[in-house]
Amino acid sequence: MSLVVYLSGEIHTNWREEIRKGAANQGLDIHFTSAVTDHDASDAAGDHLGPEDSNFWRDHKSAKVNAIRTKTLIEKCDIAVIRFGDKYKQWNAAFDAGYCAALGKPYITLHAEDIIHPLKEVDGAAMAWTTKTEQVVRILEYVTK
Amino acid sequence: MSLVVYLSGEIHTNWREEIRKGAANQGLDIHFTSAVTDHDASDAAGDHLGPEDSNFWRDHKSAKVNAIRTKTLIEKCDIAVIRFGDKYKQWNAAFDAGYCAALGKPYITLHAEDIIHPLKEVDGAAMAWTTKTEQVVRILEYVTK
Amino acid sequence: MSLVVYLSGEIHTNWREEIRKGAANQGLDIHFTSAVTDHDASDAAGDHLGPEDSNFWRDHKSAKVNAIRTKTLIEKCDIAVIRFGDKYKQWNAAFDAGYCAALGKPYITLHAEDIIHPLKEVDGAAMAWTTKTEQVVRILEYVTK
Amino acid sequence: MSLVVYLSGEIHTNWREEIRKGAANQGLDIHFTSAVTDHDASDAAGDHLGPEDSNFWRDHKSAKVNAIRTKTLIEKCDIAVIRFGDKYKQWNAAFDAGYCAALGKPYITLHAEDIIHPLKEVDGAAMAWTTKTEQVVRILEYVTK
Amino acid sequence: MSLVVYLSGEIHTNWREEIRKGAANQGLDIHFTSAVTDHDASDAAGDHLGPEDSNFWRDHKSAKVNAIRTKTLIEKCDIAVIRFGDKYKQWNAAFDAGYCAALGKPYITLHAEDIIHPLKEVDGAAMAWTTKTEQVVRILEYVTK
Amino acid sequence: MSLVVYLSGEIHTNWREEIRKGAANQGLDIHFTSAVTDHDASDAAGDHLGPEDSNFWRDHKSAKVNAIRTKTLIEKCDIAVIRFGDKYKQWNAAFDAGYCAALGKPYITLHAEDIIHPLKEVDGAAMAWTTKTEQVVRILEYVTK
Amino acid sequence: MSLVVYLSGEIHTNWREEIRKGAANQGLDIHFTSAVTDHDASDAAGDHLGPEDSNFWRDHKSAKVNAIRTKTLIEKCDIAVIRFGDKYKQWNAAFDAGYCAALGKPYITLHAEDIIHPLKEVDGAAMAWTTKTEQVVRILEYVTK
Amino acid sequence: MSLVVYLSGEIHTNWREEIRKGAANQGLDIHFTSAVTDHDASDAAGDHLGPEDSNFWRDHKSAKVNAIRTKTLIEKCDIAVIRFGDKYKQWNAAFDAGYCAALGKPYITLHAEDIIHPLKEVDGAAMAWTTKTEQVVRILEYVTK
Repeated sequence: MSLVVYLSGEIHTNWREEIRKGAANQGLDIHFTSAVTDHDASDAAGDHLGPEDSNFWRDHKSAKVNAIRTKTLIEKCDIAVIRFGDKYKQWNAAFDAGYCAALGKPYITLHAEDIIHPLKEVDGAAMAWTTKTEQVVRILEYVTK
Repeated sequence: MSLVVYLSGEIHTNWREEIRKGAANQGLDIHFTSAVTDHDASDAAGDHLGPEDSNFWRDHKSAKVNAIRTKTLIEKCDIAVIRFGDKYKQWNAAFDAGYCAALGKPYITLHAEDIIHPLKEVDGAAMAWTTKTEQVVRILEYVTK
Repeated sequence: MSLVVYLSGEIHTNWREEIRKGAANQGLDIHFTSAVTDHDASDAAGDHLGPEDSNFWRDHKSAKVNAIRTKTLIEKCDIAVIRFGDKYKQWNAAFDAGYCAALGKPYITLHAEDIIHPLKEVDGAAMAWTTKTEQVVRILEYVTK
Repeated sequence: MSLVVYLSGEIHTNWREEIRKGAANQGLDIHFTSAVTDHDASDAAGDHLGPEDSNFWRDHKSAKVNAIRTKTLIEKCDIAVIRFGDKYKQWNAAFDAGYCAALGKPYITLHAEDIIHPLKEVDGAAMAWTTKTEQVVRILEYVTK
Repeated sequence: MSLVVYLSGEIHTNWREEIRKGAANQGLDIHFTSAVTDHDASDAAGDHLGPEDSNFWRDHKSAKVNAIRTKTLIEKCDIAVIRFGDKYKQWNAAFDAGYCAALGKPYITLHAEDIIHPLKEVDGAAMAWTTKTEQVVRILEYVTK
Repeated sequence: MSLVVYLSGEIHTNWREEIRKGAANQGLDIHFTSAVTDHDASDAAGDHLGPEDSNFWRDHKSAKVNAIRTKTLIEKCDIAVIRFGDKYKQWNAAFDAGYCAALGKPYITLHAEDIIHPLKEVDGAAMAWTTKTEQVVRILEYVTK
Repeated sequence: MSLVVYLSGEIHTNWREEIRKGAANQGLDIHFTSAVTDHDASDAAGDHLGPEDSNFWRDHKSAKVNAIRTKTLIEKCDIAVIRFGDKYKQWNAAFDAGYCAALGKPYITLHAEDIIHPLKEVDGAAMAWTTKTEQVVRILEYVTK
Repeated sequence: MSLVVYLSGEIHTNWREEIRKGAANQGLDIHFTSAVTDHDASDAAGDHLGPEDSNFWRDHKSAKVNAIRTKTLIEKCDIAVIRFGDKYKQWNAAFDAGYCAALGKPYITLHAEDIIHPLKEVDGAAMAWTTKTEQVVRILEYVTK
């Protein structure tokens, strides 16, 4: 079985790469997608549309250009993995989780035990909570075998 | 015009009450709904289903009981207001925003200027960003007049 | 908050009545619906459409007349309660649970501990598992308060 | 015409294999999918996510990991075949049938005559009732020719 | 239980009136709707939009004005009754049946035994086939009790 | 039959008032809705959210506040009337028509004969083309009688 | 552009073959699908499921086996062509048209001028009315070029 | 990532060609689609269906034949670009934008600064406003990289 898996959330560690490699090592037939994970490129995604004095509108334009990509990819994926790291607000990850939940897309969360409580709503709608990328790979292996 | 407005997010300040009063003062025909906003009651929503040793499962059960309510209310609302305060992770608010976005429910964000950047994706899909409850009331007044 | 709650499953004990009374005692604003729970009437629901030699077609006609009712009620409900007792196959209850799951209707299961394992898929998609009608009532009270 | 057919239900006889072989013998262009049919593997699908003291949560985690697979496969299939054998509760099969019915996916039931009555609701929403795998193959042949 | 029932098809006999009276006699809480059943008014529904030389366009305009009504009513109904009489082509009745089937609206057919064969596809997607208006009333009574 | 009718488009003539009066004169049970039709108020709908140097963002904020209203009203209406006058670009009216078409909401156009050609796509998806408000009222009368 | 075109209706003339040949002659990238057009095979589609005394149930079983095919093909097609000949009731063709209309699938009708009036509702929801297969081919050529 | 991009609007300048070339130069994996952009062919799309005395019906037939194509292409696209030039009414472009908005298809507008105000509703629902085809290409590059 071939699947499309969207990898959402934290961009400051190499968890995406670990999952991609783990899946490749198992020979899984999975196509991984994600938002643009280069932080500066993402923040500047709308800059070529013209300069803005206000931070709000600069962010707004970039957020919408990014959303063309993320909205399309989430709607095309079969499964999402939502990663919360130990830094930053990461509201976009929680937003993606809510988006998946409303569309009925199954998603897996990936986060450490110390943020169980603030993530309880996000985990409550998830199909699995994982703490290590190997667990994600094992689920994907099971699901596609 | 009569509307149903869901108030999502921060539970530690009285922003909901301000909006309700403001709307009442203007005589707006709006029915406001929200999650249970008593923090302890919300955390304990599933406790009567039996004791749990693990924090994860205690949270999980309560999150799901709460989700029966919030999911139903979001799907029944016409408009949502999503509030981010200055404390806590507030991932549930971002989750609700994503849920609204995927359903095509218009929502208004309410948050201070200093968190514009981490909320750019959430604001990017919003119909308006406000910083004061009076602005929310003015929008609701305009929308229902 | 006013809700419509569909009560699905076992028809040989008075669990529906217990929930109705419990909700009434708490003054909950809930409208309960269900399939026709008179076993003989249900089996004979299609008999007036003409006699059948074959059991299959007799059952088929009655099942479809019943389905006009149950399908309509499930689609109109906000929440379902799915009850499994200790007798009979009760495949219609599991069918209703799957129907709810596909529609995104939140449902609560009500069954004893000894059938946890065969019901794991049905419970896996549920918002709560209960063993007593009082627990159902408490959830409904919480959800509508 | 190429079709995707989901095979749901009983895992203790070789009915899936019979249908696969029958379809291959007829040269039908059908891709068959199913849940993981290794009983022990299925029950243990969530074990690598961490140990659980409670049977309920062990089952719950495995059921959800399995559901990532089954939900995805049901939503991607064109037709489902739902098999009820002569043992066990098989509520998951009835759940799948309800899920298909709500999505408007046509399904065929495969079961012996002695369980017509308890399956009347499941058969009522089916496109055909069969008792032998050859009948299923003939329908698939007809539908894809 | 209150229901909305759409009565589609034949306009030259008083079957609608029989069902309405039968339901009233049983005290059923049903709101009946239908297309405009005055044949001449229906054919002339678009005439006030301007004269047409071509029969096709005259019919086209009236058909669309009628469709504003019928499409709206079918989408708002809970159940439809589709009646085929012994005269005319009655393609609009079969069209309504197909429309209901695609929307998942349960419908009941009402026609004599001699047209079973040409109506097999329409009956195949119906929840019940009746030959007398009393049978329709009995089903509605059962479904709403 | 009670209907909700959304009146979209031109705000510089009194066509809405004519339709409302015509419907009232016929005693039709219709609730009419529309965007805010005070041009200056509409352009300023977002001004209270803070000043903007750029015309684009001033318009953008007001357009979105207006869209909370119009999107909600279009989704709640049964029928829309889309009016094109003889001045201005009126792209918002064509946008509303496309929005209705995609949702399957039946709509009626109201415009003079000299703009038939540029409106051919908008008229192509309409259920009727009218040139006078009396014709709209006659259709509404017919549809609700 | 590659399209899937479903050919519905009359099975006693060679209109399907004419369209297929016409499209092939123009080199159009179209995949044509249709119900099984062998009348006897279609009527007998369910016979292998067991004998029936009643004509209704024999027809019913075959109609449902056929519907597995037709429902799937209509939902997978981009465009349908609905053909009405000069014989038989052809209610299944009108049923397919209604099914397409409710799904928002564009369809083209193909029928002679003498049945304009009884087909006005079916034509009213069509994207084009044709009287010759060459016209259908020209539309398909235009649409795919 | 491979995408399908629908190019809607102005047909009198070579903006489509500029975007196609720009995307090809960047090696983007994009399939572009659009309405038939030959003005005369588009106006005559329905002429082979028979002569019409009235301009309205000639336009109507052609508009519907064109809509078979455009409706299908919009529903199959991932992203749309909506272009407004400096001539003509261009209501079809605004109609397409509304159609995209209702379906949740992300779209980018392409128009000069002097029509910001009349396009504010169309831009309000867009994911980006561009004034040059190079900006469109840069967005597509970003979205597919």
